[in-house]
Amino acid sequence: MFTGLSAFPLTPVTSSGVDEQGFSKILNRLAAAHIDSIGILGSTGSYAYLTREQRNRIATLAKQLTGDIPVMVCVGAVSTDAILHLVDDAQTAGADALLLPVVSYQSLRDEEVFALFETVTRHVSVPVCVYDNPGTTHFTFTDELHGLLSSLGGIHSVKIPGVPDSPTSATERVDALRRHLRPGVTIGISGDAYAGLGLNAGCEVWYSVCGGLFPETAKQITEAAAAHDHARVTALTTRLEPLWALFRKHGGSIRVIAAAAGVLGLTDTDCLPRPLQPLTSDDITEISRVITALELK
Amino acid sequence: MFTGLSAFPLTPVTSSGVDEQGFSKILNRLAAAHIDSIGILGSTGSYAYLTREQRNRIATLAKQLTGDIPVMVCVGAVSTDAILHLVDDAQTAGADALLLPVVSYQSLRDEEVFALFETVTRHVSVPVCVYDNPGTTHFTFTDELHGLLSSLGGIHSVKIPGVPDSPTSATERVDALRRHLRPGVTIGISGDAYAGLGLNAGCEVWYSVCGGLFPETAKQITEAAAAHDHARVTALTTRLEPLWALFRKHGGSIRVIAAAAGVLGLTDTDCLPRPLQPLTSDDITEISRVITALELK
Repeated sequence: MFTGLSAFPLTPVTSSGVDEQGFSKILNRLAAAHIDSIGILGSTGSYAYLTREQRNRIATLAKQLTGDIPVMVCVGAVSTDAILHLVDDAQTAGADALLLPVVSYQSLRDEEVFALFETVTRHVSVPVCVYDNPGTTHFTFTDELHGLLSSLGGIHSVKIPGVPDSPTSATERVDALRRHLRPGVTIGISGDAYAGLGLNAGCEVWYSVCGGLFPETAKQITEAAAAHDHARVTALTTRLEPLWALFRKHGGSIRVIAAAAGVLGLTDTDCLPRPLQPLTSDDITEISRVITALELK
Repeated sequence: MFTGLSAFPLTPVTSSGVDEQGFSKILNRLAAAHIDSIGILGSTGSYAYLTREQRNRIATLAKQLTGDIPVMVCVGAVSTDAILHLVDDAQTAGADALLLPVVSYQSLRDEEVFALFETVTRHVSVPVCVYDNPGTTHFTFTDELHGLLSSLGGIHSVKIPGVPDSPTSATERVDALRRHLRPGVTIGISGDAYAGLGLNAGCEVWYSVCGGLFPETAKQITEAAAAHDHARVTALTTRLEPLWALFRKHGGSIRVIAAAAGVLGLTDTDCLPRPLQPLTSDDITEISRVITALELK
């Protein structure tokens, strides 16, 4: 399941709590698009802002809604105990895979991170994807650590935060990481603006925020990548530059995707968990224009 | 209560969970030293690693053990909802003040942080201290934001992460911040290695990790500061340089203080919540030597 398009949907949270109806509408779009897998409760899925009970409810809902599409559940938390509880909940809910970030409060050492992954992979029966996202979790992986983690049989993929900004450097980066990994462990690109570079550099999967709301748009890109049509991947991702520009302008994708979900009528435009606040109406108007102009769907 | 020595104790966590007996022994040392206040569940108090129930239990225990010494409870969490639940728990447990860090996952904007503090200060009846600790929470305050926050009547102190490394620059730093603050809001130095510089620069309180385990040693320093004896403050804090060197060597104070609590026989030397791991026996031997050589108590 760690190839192709893995879509990372928003978990809308309104003033009355998690908007289950809105989440269901978002998931139904993903199911209808027949994408390769769904990654719920990622960063855009606001795992860090939700209680264990809310996360359990979202995982259960997702499994009910997505039919045969495999569901990966993010089990990130600061403490190992909390992670293990979330792992148990996710497995009981029917998770097909787990995504494990290293959420640090005190700085963590590599050996502590290795021990964490060892504990979790021993504890579970489903495959685990390593979530490398220093921008939010404040832990920076080395390739050596990725290599060590991939020696654990339970690790099946690595979600990387981006690649250098040229095709040659991107390929060198992906090749360098791959030399450290156990054969068969896939590399997934995230940071949507890097999707084209990453896929053309050999990443087998796009862990995609864009795909969590606009699965048809994102699927065209991973299908072009599967056909090894580098020029088309580049054209299709370059075309989305106005969307990536919005992500940059608003300090990441979550506020833009939340506004976009509101614009599409799937939930309220104010659907972020506090302390996060919605964008202004002017910003939302601009987002609406970009959705229309790029025919995002 | 936001002056003098505010000691920040460890919350020991062993393989069987929170070591309440160990925590009680640590708190009894603080009560016996008649310090000015106690800040429980700070970063060294591992709030980020504990459940709501564990934090509630620790706050209740602290109030039972500390007699007339005011207790400040850290209510940090990623989501506003979680913070408000922790605030309610802390007030019910008898907290005399609350310490509120800005734990960020998605990057936060100043207006989001202001709204968070506005929500919390409206919700509570006890004073609140702003916890500025970018090293762990990954939010960086501007002085302008500190000024805005201090306009909220409920804010009574600001815990800053350190000062520049010379007496003149430290004084300029503290003066610059103070010009932004509502009169009466105190400035507290943390980052123990900066204690002497900060106190001599006019900080009214030392939010002290060292004081959480070695209250007599720390109290000598805040008493010298209260007597405006700058030379003695400098001499007493410079003398502790081998302890600050251990904090630097081990990426912060928590692993050193945890080991030290074990060396003193108050808890196990392995008393950190996973994924944090204890130091090696060689490191613990070195820490034991420093405790003896500096006569820490």
